Amino acid sequence: MSQDWQQLNTAIIKLLKEARQRVLTKMQDPLTVAEKSNRKDLVTNVDRANEKFLIAGIREIDPTAQVLGEEGFGDELTSLDGRVWIVDPIDGTMNFVKQQDNFAIMIGIYQDGVGQLGYIYDVMNDVLYHGGPQLGGVWADDRQLAAPADIALADGLIGASGPLVIHDVAHMQEIIHVSSGMRVLGSAGIEMINIMNGKTLGYISHLKPWDIAAGQVLLNELGVQVSTIDGKPLDMLSSNLVLVATKKAQRDILRIEEDDVSL
Amino acid sequence: MSQDWQQLNTAIIKLLKEARQRVLTKMQDPLTVAEKSNRKDLVTNVDRANEKFLIAGIREIDPTAQVLGEEGFGDELTSLDGRVWIVDPIDGTMNFVKQQDNFAIMIGIYQDGVGQLGYIYDVMNDVLYHGGPQLGGVWADDRQLAAPADIALADGLIGASGPLVIHDVAHMQEIIHVSSGMRVLGSAGIEMINIMNGKTLGYISHLKPWDIAAGQVLLNELGVQVSTIDGKPLDMLSSNLVLVATKKAQRDILRIEEDDVSL
Repeated sequence: MSQDWQQLNTAIIKLLKEARQRVLTKMQDPLTVAEKSNRKDLVTNVDRANEKFLIAGIREIDPTAQVLGEEGFGDELTSLDGRVWIVDPIDGTMNFVKQQDNFAIMIGIYQDGVGQLGYIYDVMNDVLYHGGPQLGGVWADDRQLAAPADIALADGLIGASGPLVIHDVAHMQEIIHVSSGMRVLGSAGIEMINIMNGKTLGYISHLKPWDIAAGQVLLNELGVQVSTIDGKPLDMLSSNLVLVATKKAQRDILRIEEDDVSL
Repeated sequence: MSQDWQQLNTAIIKLLKEARQRVLTKMQDPLTVAEKSNRKDLVTNVDRANEKFLIAGIREIDPTAQVLGEEGFGDELTSLDGRVWIVDPIDGTMNFVKQQDNFAIMIGIYQDGVGQLGYIYDVMNDVLYHGGPQLGGVWADDRQLAAPADIALADGLIGASGPLVIHDVAHMQEIIHVSSGMRVLGSAGIEMINIMNGKTLGYISHLKPWDIAAGQVLLNELGVQVSTIDGKPLDMLSSNLVLVATKKAQRDILRIEEDDVSL
């Protein structure tokens, strides 16, 4: 690992710990909640304030980088050239509003489109998952994580987004039927943590770049596959129907997709 | 609270703490897993050993009581007369096997069919939820819980069992649509804990007596409603399609059920 990336990592961890403290402080006061595209797509004053805080910090750390933020306080990205920071200030905003738990702060750093560093901060449990190729591993705070076992779809639980299950998008119901069962947690970041810890073998959801940027870096580093539901690389400038899975489960799921001649 | 019930409570807490230690010790060794009715209905050596241990302890504490245990080491119950202990040695066995997390040990105590004391032990977080009318409240270890806010279905998240959602039993999909969203955790006990903590407003699942015995006592004590999906009292000698919900959300859900003329 180069000295530069090590310094970057140290600066990011410091920034994220400050961000967490600010979020916890703001949670003492009533939230201001607004709807974005619909009544289940929320944004709060804390999402917005935290994105502003993080992006200001990132500008200091890495002044020439591009920054893509969920709430729109970053740059208008048209390419992934150079260094790009992708920021989700509060992932799982519905959980944040309704549970004050089970949400994450996430940052992914890409260089010319290739993931380099990822950060998923489980705020309420105060565990910061971080790593990537530039660190040569993934850590939960100071504890290095082993790669999750490469289990088949039939041998594990799979995370899912509720709407995909209900509307049976991309054979979700058959995939769940073959698996040991589904779990629905309401936060892509918390789902990624479950996969890193081997508690689920994968996750399927329609995701924006900030929902998956950090997770893709961390999970790839642990040998877990991240692709579109039909096995292609993600477009990190757009939405994707994302399939995260162990190698074996990815194969099992792609076979279910291919068996559908209508695709 | 009578002296008798207080002594009973002290003895049960001691028994459950011993049971937890034994479960943690057994988790160091490989599990023996067997299928019951199908490949998603599991039992392990730990479920069986823990039920035997708990029932032996209960026989010492309360020799004349009847005991109903999930794995069949208790009595064959034909009535709820007298004192009845209902035991789930490992609730969320699939989570126990696949995650080594998110499972519970549960005991409910009924007198002539009326819930008196309930215990849900979140084993991995080491938090014992206990209470009921004989204790005059509900506690998470030593911390007394406030009643969850009585929110409407539209204002909160609802726990669900995966199969009910996929097969759209009892208008599950409409109920979820009206709510803020569904969560699926894979353990009735962990779902009950979420409701006690106000993180979800309810839970709908097909449950056996041992899945709901403790939860019914604890949640009723906190003002949360427990009924069948059509609003009737549970039959604690049989399976029920169970609706657990805040008062307002129960009303909203029963209205959705009643709007279906085919019922």
